[in-house]
Amino acid sequence: MERPLILVSNDDGYKAKGINCLVRVLMEFGDVVVVAPHTGRSGKGCAITSEVPIKVWEVAAEPGLQVYACTGTPSDCVKLACHSVVPRTPSLVIGGINHGDNSAVNAHYSGTMGVVLEGCMKGIPSIAFSLCSHDEDADFSPTFPYIRRIVAEVLQRGLPAGSCLNVNFPDAPSYAGVKVCRQAIGSWVNEWEAHTHPRGGQWWWLTGEFVIEDSDEGADRVALNNNYVAITPTKIDFTDYSLLAEMQGWGL
Amino acid sequence: MERPLILVSNDDGYKAKGINCLVRVLMEFGDVVVVAPHTGRSGKGCAITSEVPIKVWEVAAEPGLQVYACTGTPSDCVKLACHSVVPRTPSLVIGGINHGDNSAVNAHYSGTMGVVLEGCMKGIPSIAFSLCSHDEDADFSPTFPYIRRIVAEVLQRGLPAGSCLNVNFPDAPSYAGVKVCRQAIGSWVNEWEAHTHPRGGQWWWLTGEFVIEDSDEGADRVALNNNYVAITPTKIDFTDYSLLAEMQGWGL
Repeated sequence: MERPLILVSNDDGYKAKGINCLVRVLMEFGDVVVVAPHTGRSGKGCAITSEVPIKVWEVAAEPGLQVYACTGTPSDCVKLACHSVVPRTPSLVIGGINHGDNSAVNAHYSGTMGVVLEGCMKGIPSIAFSLCSHDEDADFSPTFPYIRRIVAEVLQRGLPAGSCLNVNFPDAPSYAGVKVCRQAIGSWVNEWEAHTHPRGGQWWWLTGEFVIEDSDEGADRVALNNNYVAITPTKIDFTDYSLLAEMQGWGL
Repeated sequence: MERPLILVSNDDGYKAKGINCLVRVLMEFGDVVVVAPHTGRSGKGCAITSEVPIKVWEVAAEPGLQVYACTGTPSDCVKLACHSVVPRTPSLVIGGINHGDNSAVNAHYSGTMGVVLEGCMKGIPSIAFSLCSHDEDADFSPTFPYIRRIVAEVLQRGLPAGSCLNVNFPDAPSYAGVKVCRQAIGSWVNEWEAHTHPRGGQWWWLTGEFVIEDSDEGADRVALNNNYVAITPTKIDFTDYSLLAEMQGWGL
């Protein structure tokens, strides 16, 4: 039997420690193809590149592993990989391990989730892994046994069409366990810092603090704060069905 | 009583015909502040700019209207507008009128939806309007009576916390009516076209065709094909609650 083919991408770029750690764990399960941004593309969400052409090239290869860099966004990487890089449809699309939290509303801004939503749109079981640390040299090793368990389950069970997993790990040397969660409610505040350009004029840097408006242990950001690994099952279809039903009575 | 304040942005840039048509309709309802990309930022989804600072500047003003250009993404525009441009919290955040379809999975790639999801995250009732035509000089006038009706309803009723509206108009001189819809199921195929650079090397342009895998009249892309205005109520929370329940039994 052929080994599973696993497509991997991220938003921190192919050189990041997180993706290189992830690849070593995934090679236990199958042949790995990496198609990842040539440089950091954090916060790109599901952005795609339509105004310029993009390029992909091989940067490394060894038995069971091929690594390609790409000038596109994380979503572009998956689109182009499926179109012209991988030799057959992958069994899994995996994003990460991201350097930083992608829980709560951050899932919408996340290029790691861009990877995984794109894999999911292509009908491939897809999983995002993120560690709640922006440290370039973060210790990813506590995540490995959990990644092994989750990948093994998904390879065996599959995932429903249109659904993917968003897995976030606390920034800790060990974890309290795993919680399957919903997206926590919360919002960003104090998001901009004004700076004056050396030649004058005001420029704004994006910064801010995330405020949780949720105390439920079943909400991903809360579970993370309690040192649990948070798995948030996530859908491509973000229709609000209850508002849909209510609006039928609006008489539009 | 103060007139409502309406914040408007888009992903085609502040000079686009769509946003300028929209502004004229919205000025009937309140004071309008536009903070929109200085150039086209289509396909940017919920992308945010963290690696460089951004800038915002006034480009036009008249009684009841102020227009600012911004170097950021559509989401950045809303974030920065709320932080440092608008004098008070807007009553509405409106995105559009987009030159092109944002139904089905396109909602994830859409900068117009980036505007509206961001407004929604900030607790403001938010509506995206898109016309299924990429023509720079498209005729937006058939949309005006529908925009008036939808804006009036939302100003009066509000929207539930965490929900916003994604409104798409067919490319037609008149419409069959309005349908409140769910996101249609479908996917993009043949997404890349290879080109050779004048100095050699292969580059890829994003293109493709969208294939609907849905025939339900209540799916947005299907309703549009039947010449209906499609209103898709959309949630920030895209947790898959049924998979969440199922995964409690996985023993992770």
